[in-house]
Amino acid sequence: MQFHLNGFRPGNPEIAEEAGRSVKSDEVDVLIVGSGPAGLTLAAQLAQYPEITTRLVERKSGPMEKGQADGVSCRSMEMFEAFGFAHRVKREAYWVNETTFWKPDASDPSQIVRAGRVQDVEDGLSEMPHVILNQGRVHDMYLELMRNAPTRMEPDYGLQLVDLRVHPTAEDYPATVTLEDEATGDRETVRARYVVGCDGARSGVRQAIGRQLQGDSANQAWGVMDVLVVTDFPDIRMKSLIQSDSEGTVLIIPREGGYLVRLYIEQEKLKPDERVADRNITIEKLIERAKRIFHPYSLEVKDVVWWSVYQIGQRLTDKFDDVPEEEVATRLPTVFIAGDACHTHSPKAGQGMNVSMGDTFNLGWKLAAVLRGQCKPELLHSYSEERQGVAQDLIDFDREWARIISERREEDGDTPHFQRAFVKQGRYTAGVAVKYAPSILTGTATWQGLAKGFEIGTRFHSAPVIRLADGKPMHLGHVVQADGRWRLFAFAPEGDRGDEGSAIAALCARLTDDPASPLRRYTPEGADVDAVFDLRAVFQQGFRDLAFSAMPELLRPAKGRFGLCDYEKVFCPDLKDGPDIFDLRGIDRQQGALVIVRPDQYVGHVLPLDEHAALQGFFDGFMRPATA
Amino acid sequence: MQFHLNGFRPGNPEIAEEAGRSVKSDEVDVLIVGSGPAGLTLAAQLAQYPEITTRLVERKSGPMEKGQADGVSCRSMEMFEAFGFAHRVKREAYWVNETTFWKPDASDPSQIVRAGRVQDVEDGLSEMPHVILNQGRVHDMYLELMRNAPTRMEPDYGLQLVDLRVHPTAEDYPATVTLEDEATGDRETVRARYVVGCDGARSGVRQAIGRQLQGDSANQAWGVMDVLVVTDFPDIRMKSLIQSDSEGTVLIIPREGGYLVRLYIEQEKLKPDERVADRNITIEKLIERAKRIFHPYSLEVKDVVWWSVYQIGQRLTDKFDDVPEEEVATRLPTVFIAGDACHTHSPKAGQGMNVSMGDTFNLGWKLAAVLRGQCKPELLHSYSEERQGVAQDLIDFDREWARIISERREEDGDTPHFQRAFVKQGRYTAGVAVKYAPSILTGTATWQGLAKGFEIGTRFHSAPVIRLADGKPMHLGHVVQADGRWRLFAFAPEGDRGDEGSAIAALCARLTDDPASPLRRYTPEGADVDAVFDLRAVFQQGFRDLAFSAMPELLRPAKGRFGLCDYEKVFCPDLKDGPDIFDLRGIDRQQGALVIVRPDQYVGHVLPLDEHAALQGFFDGFMRPATA
Ligand SMILES: Cc1cc2nc3c(=O)[nH]c(=O)nc-3n(C[C@H](O)[C@H](O)[C@H](O)COP(=O)(O)OP(=O)(O)OC[C@H]3O[C@@H](n4cnc5c(N)ncnc54)[C@H](O)[C@@H]3O)c2cc1C
Ligand SMILES: Cc1cc2nc3c(=O)[nH]c(=O)nc-3n(C[C@H](O)[C@H](O)[C@H](O)COP(=O)(O)OP(=O)(O)OC[C@H]3O[C@@H](n4cnc5c(N)ncnc54)[C@H](O)[C@@H]3O)c2cc1C
Repeated sequence: MQFHLNGFRPGNPEIAEEAGRSVKSDEVDVLIVGSGPAGLTLAAQLAQYPEITTRLVERKSGPMEKGQADGVSCRSMEMFEAFGFAHRVKREAYWVNETTFWKPDASDPSQIVRAGRVQDVEDGLSEMPHVILNQGRVHDMYLELMRNAPTRMEPDYGLQLVDLRVHPTAEDYPATVTLEDEATGDRETVRARYVVGCDGARSGVRQAIGRQLQGDSANQAWGVMDVLVVTDFPDIRMKSLIQSDSEGTVLIIPREGGYLVRLYIEQEKLKPDERVADRNITIEKLIERAKRIFHPYSLEVKDVVWWSVYQIGQRLTDKFDDVPEEEVATRLPTVFIAGDACHTHSPKAGQGMNVSMGDTFNLGWKLAAVLRGQCKPELLHSYSEERQGVAQDLIDFDREWARIISERREEDGDTPHFQRAFVKQGRYTAGVAVKYAPSILTGTATWQGLAKGFEIGTRFHSAPVIRLADGKPMHLGHVVQADGRWRLFAFAPEGDRGDEGSAIAALCARLTDDPASPLRRYTPEGADVDAVFDLRAVFQQGFRDLAFSAMPELLRPAKGRFGLCDYEKVFCPDLKDGPDIFDLRGIDRQQGALVIVRPDQYVGHVLPLDEHAALQGFFDGFMRPATA
Repeated sequence: MQFHLNGFRPGNPEIAEEAGRSVKSDEVDVLIVGSGPAGLTLAAQLAQYPEITTRLVERKSGPMEKGQADGVSCRSMEMFEAFGFAHRVKREAYWVNETTFWKPDASDPSQIVRAGRVQDVEDGLSEMPHVILNQGRVHDMYLELMRNAPTRMEPDYGLQLVDLRVHPTAEDYPATVTLEDEATGDRETVRARYVVGCDGARSGVRQAIGRQLQGDSANQAWGVMDVLVVTDFPDIRMKSLIQSDSEGTVLIIPREGGYLVRLYIEQEKLKPDERVADRNITIEKLIERAKRIFHPYSLEVKDVVWWSVYQIGQRLTDKFDDVPEEEVATRLPTVFIAGDACHTHSPKAGQGMNVSMGDTFNLGWKLAAVLRGQCKPELLHSYSEERQGVAQDLIDFDREWARIISERREEDGDTPHFQRAFVKQGRYTAGVAVKYAPSILTGTATWQGLAKGFEIGTRFHSAPVIRLADGKPMHLGHVVQADGRWRLFAFAPEGDRGDEGSAIAALCARLTDDPASPLRRYTPEGADVDAVFDLRAVFQQGFRDLAFSAMPELLRPAKGRFGLCDYEKVFCPDLKDGPDIFDLRGIDRQQGALVIVRPDQYVGHVLPLDEHAALQGFFDGFMRPATA
């Protein structure tokens, strides 16, 4: 965390100075509909910019307290780190360390036995754990972030979107939205530059732009309950899948705090056109079935905190904005949909909350960049392009997954099919399998060989480093904060010390001196030199063998109103604990590499350190020259 | 963190349910004078007990914002972990990773050169870093803790103690205190069972009990300033000591946020009876001197956040309570003094805040235990006994230290005397050298050989383990929360699986069944079985090779109103990363060991697992049988 740059401010540095407090305006830059994980991730991002007017409307009367999703993937934790609250989630949440599998006992199929166990997240997949936390608490973290942001943003609760019209040719505020006060029935009209429908599976925004969720008829129903139980089942504090002989399947998700547990209980398949509501499933029936599946272990439910019955549908919308495919070249999007509004998943893979947050983390920086004049509005097409593909992949994965966990028995001895599938699919579940296809935002693989472990289009996979100026051991990825900036990670070739004549010095000189360099073209006059592009260098020497003062000026820039030096731009490998970052991420030690990381932590490109034309070309594709 | 035991509660689990909100009463159990680190550590502890009435009065009109101490030792961080906010300090603070030493250049003594560098905290000394954070922010953490406690405690600002009288023979409230409102001059009288003077170096409480700070005349003055600077000095983000040829010494303490830095600037020795105030030292003079010491490096001070001039005195009070040495056998203490009120240090070793917090962390649980009827009031004598010795050690260390850092030059070539001394003294600075002598609270070394790395009288040195029930990798020491409970860590002998006939099972049986066992004698009827003694077991097998369900009941106790199982009592070694806890802490693999840990994280005793008599004897020495 960096603070006090422009002078000391007492108190909590995570509470920003108030600037441009958001007011209930009837003309807004962005109107967000819905305060679920998707809406809040977006709001938390936009709340940081006093120059952007954002409103978040939510039909419910106040924040969520319990229920719904609870799985937070490693990838979402990496994003929480960028938002600055991963450390709190780590402390409060349950950690999924191990998953166990139970099946009918071969000698007495009425009983279950443990068939296997696997480590939940493979070593080295992420520096973050896979955790479980009440969705309401995730909301709370975002709400606090919004409250602490310069705009002191709060959702407008009890306010429902009832109508949305778009005038694609309008100059200023192409969207007109009608909001209704849930309590009084009063209506107001709001005009918006952009509307983002984060309004869940029954999205009114989706309907207003004429899109539909399409896919499987949801014929698999599951009951879910958050309960306090007494049981002699040995793995009640492990994520466990129990496949019974004739009573179906239970998935156990231990919860935060050490006592609470969530049970997903499989229900009989629904007939075509049957709805789960018709089944008249009660909590008592869910508990009874769970008891039978647990046999011979006891299960006594002491307290039911929340329960629901869930119909699985893997569904997807064909496009996530209001521009018809055939008009992409000629029309700009005004309305976006995100999260459950455009894709739904079975809850079993724990994807719902994670993918929804991923959507708006992708959209947030793009909206901000366009509204702040940094990027061309055409950039906004990339939201649907990128996220629709991800959702499709996940739906495919999810469908496969649902099929596998409904299988009653493994085919071959001690290693159930499920368990093998589980290991194979770990990367999906962890959220790190997402890979954006080449586009204006994602380079081609031409120079991928220079940094094999930073795959273009995937999230920047952090690794440990030592900060040169103060010797601090830390994670390189944690410098990528959710502040809308691009990171340029320059990995130095062997022997490079940053001094004159070195590749790093040449890169810095070019970035600083060449009027065509992205730094020169896209950094506004008067702004700090790293306001748009945050260059960081990683050298190969140990931190005691390198001099910070020999670094090029761009790596020790003077910033803020006092012109203070930023000492946090230069890193060395951690040579004490195991393989270093160059080995871990397969960086070419001879040539080094320049790794471009997007504001949402995805690798935009990998380039040779001296490929200036490609570097310029990449940013020229979507950025707008800075106007002071 | 464990929560939801008695049912789900929405929101932040760190905000306790309100119970017995503290009111401004004129009859209190504990009156704390002063809201510095000592007073706040005590208040944060007592605020957890609604059954104890506590008031904290502070002369100043509100919380501190800047200045004073900033060094937080590893040991204090371990304590912060027990209070539940170490993770936040870790995130916000500067980490001291490396210390460098500068001296006059032999070829041109008007210039300084780097003479050496050392890792600041030796590997394995603590799982916590040594950090630097504005004292005001440490206060803020405590204030939040108090606000979130069941009593919702707040300091009474603007209220000054002006008189204190003790009536040692009074039945109920032996202390009578007069408080004066700083703004209005209004006075009120408060009667208290105990008064704790945390009122700093000029303590009125100390004077009221007729004690004095004694020691060196403070003839060494230092200037101190928190500043934003521009400099080409290479190590400005390292803790650095610069010894110049003729201009004295500067100590650089980099600060939180990446830009701020503290400089301590040595001043000329004071003549006998001269006071630093007479010197008319100004901030300009401090800056000028610092510039000369930095030569040939530049130093431009852009903003002065805080500055002060400091006179070093290593001083100490002979006893930390109001009972004269000769009356210890016949009289109980009513008044205690803590922190700077009873000992002062040069700021250079960064001890002031740390030792002060250590004092009241020692006192807090004792006061609570006596007021709650758990322990005999004679226990309170141990506060002065233990902490006066610690302070004496530190004063000795501090004096030595001050002498060393004032030495202008090293004697022998490249390894300055200072640097060697620094390495040797690292444990002192880290706060882990504290060792309480044998007493009713601290056992003798008879069985120390069973767990050589858990030295009796020193703080419990945490090590990594895996929690059996959920496979979570964690630090064993982090189960020791600041909740006033005793921990019994049972390390199992080789092959022990917790099942019938094993040493661990025998220990559990004895604790549960023997009416003379401390658990039976001292746990109140109706309370959870771990309300006073929190037994945890550590086995030698990997966590996949052991069955939680085979554990004795005491290790999976039913708790709370639903009788839910506590799954967090059993641990296995971490066999993946390096030596395991048995090797790290020298535990006898054949016999195992029982390690008794006090509520303040200090090792009370090490016993064989079957030494029941010694176990009983230990607690019988100071505890009081539970009255339901
Ligand atoms: C009842 C329920 C149970 C669930 N259970 C599970 C589970 O057990 N496991 C699991 O993994 N996932 C579960 N989910 C799914 C998971 O919660 C979602 O995947 C996730 O919340 C998606 O986030 P979102 O922000 O896209 O949408 P949501 O979280 O659905 O948020 C949409 C928000 O928009 C608001 N809204 C809707 N329409 C309007 C309007 N017109 N005007 C204003 N506001 C509006 C809604 O009130 C809601 O707050 C459940 C979802 C629901 C609804
Ligand atoms: C001006 C100053 C500068 C310092 N600078 C440094 C430094 O640079 N580096 C360093 O390591 N340490 C420094 N210290 C020391 C460090 O702050 C202390 O060691 C540490 O704060 C001790 O904590 P404490 O709680 O014992 O006392 P303090 O922090 O001194 O707290 C005592 C509190 O009691 C209050 N008080 C006093 N009398 C009364 C009364 N009669 N009624 C009510 N309230 C009363 C005071 O207002 C004060 O808030 C400095 C201390 C001071 C006072």
